[in-house]
Amino acid sequence: MKVYQHIVTYYECDKMGVVHHSNYVRFMEEARVDWLDQLGYGFDRMEAEGVVSPVVSVSCQYKHPTTFKDAISIELHVEHLSTFKITFGYTMKVREQVVCVATSVHCFLENNHPVALEQRFPELYRKIVETMEKK
Amino acid sequence: MKVYQHIVTYYECDKMGVVHHSNYVRFMEEARVDWLDQLGYGFDRMEAEGVVSPVVSVSCQYKHPTTFKDAISIELHVEHLSTFKITFGYTMKVREQVVCVATSVHCFLENNHPVALEQRFPELYRKIVETMEKK
Amino acid sequence: MKVYQHIVTYYECDKMGVVHHSNYVRFMEEARVDWLDQLGYGFDRMEAEGVVSPVVSVSCQYKHPTTFKDAISIELHVEHLSTFKITFGYTMKVREQVVCVATSVHCFLENNHPVALEQRFPELYRKIVETMEKK
Amino acid sequence: MKVYQHIVTYYECDKMGVVHHSNYVRFMEEARVDWLDQLGYGFDRMEAEGVVSPVVSVSCQYKHPTTFKDAISIELHVEHLSTFKITFGYTMKVREQVVCVATSVHCFLENNHPVALEQRFPELYRKIVETMEKK
Repeated sequence: MKVYQHIVTYYECDKMGVVHHSNYVRFMEEARVDWLDQLGYGFDRMEAEGVVSPVVSVSCQYKHPTTFKDAISIELHVEHLSTFKITFGYTMKVREQVVCVATSVHCFLENNHPVALEQRFPELYRKIVETMEKK
Repeated sequence: MKVYQHIVTYYECDKMGVVHHSNYVRFMEEARVDWLDQLGYGFDRMEAEGVVSPVVSVSCQYKHPTTFKDAISIELHVEHLSTFKITFGYTMKVREQVVCVATSVHCFLENNHPVALEQRFPELYRKIVETMEKK
Repeated sequence: MKVYQHIVTYYECDKMGVVHHSNYVRFMEEARVDWLDQLGYGFDRMEAEGVVSPVVSVSCQYKHPTTFKDAISIELHVEHLSTFKITFGYTMKVREQVVCVATSVHCFLENNHPVALEQRFPELYRKIVETMEKK
Repeated sequence: MKVYQHIVTYYECDKMGVVHHSNYVRFMEEARVDWLDQLGYGFDRMEAEGVVSPVVSVSCQYKHPTTFKDAISIELHVEHLSTFKITFGYTMKVREQVVCVATSVHCFLENNHPVALEQRFPELYRKIVETMEKK
């Protein structure tokens, strides 16, 4: 899987001259979107099928500030996979230095009911398991 | 009509320590939402009736920077009202100093077709005309 | 202490029609700024004295979606207070329903060196301890 | 000059499922940053030399909505160049369809005084004039 990269824009930096901490949550989403696309099953395809994927929780540990024009590499892996939930882990680096470590938990809903990923999207489920075995 | 007020948050300020210029376009939307609410016809009520109101154009002239904790007062008035379009004018002030002067043009769409405001929302139309006469 | 309230704007909602999850991290900051202001020691006063307060980590558990015009009440309390770090807990509610539970950890830096809150800002430290005793 | 491209993220789309109109002002900044970088004189280099470049005004005409994953190509050219101000014109396209046409006016400040671009940055001035002649 290709590592996602986010180039920091001017408007993402705050008064302290560094990326505002809330933006890392957005970079995580970008990396997740890219990762699912690489598996051939993007958010847009899910939404077209009537399945949405709300965020259950997020956590971020900020290790080092980043700033304008920094290229943040975001490595994403699946930490846990259960019937109804998936937990992603993220390691963000700038020039090999870890700047942020994060996790996010997601579920899948269809008509407001929880969706079992293995049954609803068996091909995607299988591919996700494969990425976990490779690690 | 009551003047809308936006208190500048930390995350709205950029590396130069001032409100990022893109945010004024958001403050304009906040003032517009508030203004329509005061007329008794909010965006949410329109959307519930199947009418959306896309932005046709915006323009902003930045007169003076604003920063964290500034209270920006946003005076809104209707500059033009035609069959399919409405033009709002905005004057934003901090402690009586003008900080930004702006305009925005909007239309109304129902099932992707232009909506004539006077026919579709006659009560709202009448109220808007009243605000123009008072000025 | 007065509970901080954030009224959800149109631009804070995403394609799913609910507040984008990254925005809660911004609401937490707004509540924190307000809370420190209520204690008489705002971010701006600290920054003017040369002390910045980076975010060490954040975590959010999303309990219920919120949307345009919702009034989110954000109760903030200090969970832990150590020599160099402070942990805030947040409970966000809309019409008495909990929508998000969160925490954030912060340190204080002066000339890039950790600041012991009790020594650098004894009055603020005492006031924070008081809020913890009242709880 | 290479045309700048912005891929629309999920969080840039609003309740109507399209890019929120305020975001185009941010995309303009991204294109401007990239364009100055291509001329070898980025915002960061200017800021390092103590020159900031505030936005004097912006205007956007929204021609067609864009949405999640759209690749927006942003062509930038210099519309006017005077002693103290520069006006950029932007044409944004998705799959050859024009989605937004915009302009922005900028000045340059050093110690809060207007800077004459031709005198302060003669090399950059010359390169900008060259791009205008090529057009």
